[in-house]
Amino acid sequence: MAKQFETIALIGIGLIGSSIAREIKDKGLAGSVVISTRSDATLKRAQELNLGDRYTTSAAEAVKDADLVIVSVPVGASGTVAAEIAANLKPGAIVTDVGSTKGSVIAQMAPHIPQGVHFIPGHPIAGTEYSGPDAGFIGLFKGRWCILTPLPDTDETAKAKLRAFWEALGSMVDDMDPEHHDKVLAIVSHLPHIIAYNIVGTADDLEAVTESEVIKYSASGFRDFTRLAASDPTMWRDVCLHNKDAILEMLARFSEDLAYLQRAIRWGDGDKLFDLFTRTRAIRRSIVQAGQDTDMADFGRHAMDQK
Amino acid sequence: MAKQFETIALIGIGLIGSSIAREIKDKGLAGSVVISTRSDATLKRAQELNLGDRYTTSAAEAVKDADLVIVSVPVGASGTVAAEIAANLKPGAIVTDVGSTKGSVIAQMAPHIPQGVHFIPGHPIAGTEYSGPDAGFIGLFKGRWCILTPLPDTDETAKAKLRAFWEALGSMVDDMDPEHHDKVLAIVSHLPHIIAYNIVGTADDLEAVTESEVIKYSASGFRDFTRLAASDPTMWRDVCLHNKDAILEMLARFSEDLAYLQRAIRWGDGDKLFDLFTRTRAIRRSIVQAGQDTDMADFGRHAMDQK
Repeated sequence: MAKQFETIALIGIGLIGSSIAREIKDKGLAGSVVISTRSDATLKRAQELNLGDRYTTSAAEAVKDADLVIVSVPVGASGTVAAEIAANLKPGAIVTDVGSTKGSVIAQMAPHIPQGVHFIPGHPIAGTEYSGPDAGFIGLFKGRWCILTPLPDTDETAKAKLRAFWEALGSMVDDMDPEHHDKVLAIVSHLPHIIAYNIVGTADDLEAVTESEVIKYSASGFRDFTRLAASDPTMWRDVCLHNKDAILEMLARFSEDLAYLQRAIRWGDGDKLFDLFTRTRAIRRSIVQAGQDTDMADFGRHAMDQK
Repeated sequence: MAKQFETIALIGIGLIGSSIAREIKDKGLAGSVVISTRSDATLKRAQELNLGDRYTTSAAEAVKDADLVIVSVPVGASGTVAAEIAANLKPGAIVTDVGSTKGSVIAQMAPHIPQGVHFIPGHPIAGTEYSGPDAGFIGLFKGRWCILTPLPDTDETAKAKLRAFWEALGSMVDDMDPEHHDKVLAIVSHLPHIIAYNIVGTADDLEAVTESEVIKYSASGFRDFTRLAASDPTMWRDVCLHNKDAILEMLARFSEDLAYLQRAIRWGDGDKLFDLFTRTRAIRRSIVQAGQDTDMADFGRHAMDQK
């Protein structure tokens, strides 16, 4: 593929940052990649993995010559990074991020971004339960959506360049209002993670059922939730703190619906249960049809076992 | 493998029944397999798939010569099946089931089982989101636990024979008190399914977020829940109605814990969130170590894509 940027700076080199680094190298999208992370150990690991061309623990240093800066840090750290890099950003550079909350990231970062630099917040809808530079891989973004939440008066050329970058990584790109993004993600991502963390916590706390029993018999449903509940704690703490309003709204809806379902169970209302359990099947089918999940039974677990 | 029973009757030929049928044939565990289901269409399909040796819509007819009878129907139908087959059960025969609730199944079936027939309730902890005779496959029970909940004074020889049967299918076998089984399954299986159905219902009902958005961006977590929420509605309605007390107890615990988590989000208590999100990681690791789930990122979805 053709080179899209002369120099790309990656601030943060976890699952997302390191997947982007691998894609850039694989597809020849940049002349040079500068990698920055605060931790010496992580930076060293990124270097061992040969993810970039230059390595520094200073984000300010990293962005000096960059035409594209991608900030991939827990959303609570966005403001600090923006403050740190602001003075060194090159006029005409594009600054983007990959955070799962957009209102908060914009509030934290936008005030620091100087005139003449294009700040275009973004969010690739992709990930796994693993984190760190070793967790990244080529193909993570393929067939997945990337949402951009540009501010008013965003430069169209800059936006087109960022869009083309994500498309080169295999993504489909949508534009969205930041506030709407935060509501959408609250239901499709934040609530599922919170619920998964919660049910795993509940199971862990029970007196009547031992942890060993929970583990042994987890193939009956529980194990599905443990994947999301194994996600990076720092990232998810920050998401909860930085998309509070939308998450609390979705939690209220969820709890209201659960109370209704609980009442149907208590009073033996089989028809209400059957109606809900039938309706939810259709959504799974639509997700599979949209290419957003496999149609293989049990996510293909048995098929993998047989290989 | 050696033949274990002369004649096995399978009452119900869905995901579980048809997986058992395939295993029996594959491993030569029976001289003859009789298949029975109420639906003409399903019975015809079982015959097309060549799952057994004889086929009948009459459960009473099916069990006549059977040394082992396996009832694999939604738990709400257990009593009806027991009443239907009771008079035709052969002295010395073993009757078992595969239902996800044991207290209720015992209450429904035990009164019908004649003296001299060994009723040993069972529950293989295995399944997928698909149902019907086409959904079954060889390997479903491999490495999974099967729980037997024998009644007091159960014949040890009969129990050993049933245990050996499940072991031949690749399962590990545990004995458990029926009441305890129902509590364990309420947390590891019933609650996860109910929560999954509920969150998919909540997402489907939102006004602020469209169904198309939920589907497009589902790879950020939501899609995991849609798998469980695509499970058989009749089976799950019956589970909810027949394990009410244990499910309501677990729902109360879950909601209590969720209120605590919600409060931590509202008041920005990052430490509480971080503590929970860290603790839950360990359980995933234990499940993987126990061989009850894959350690591949994202259940191996990306790895499957690349094959």
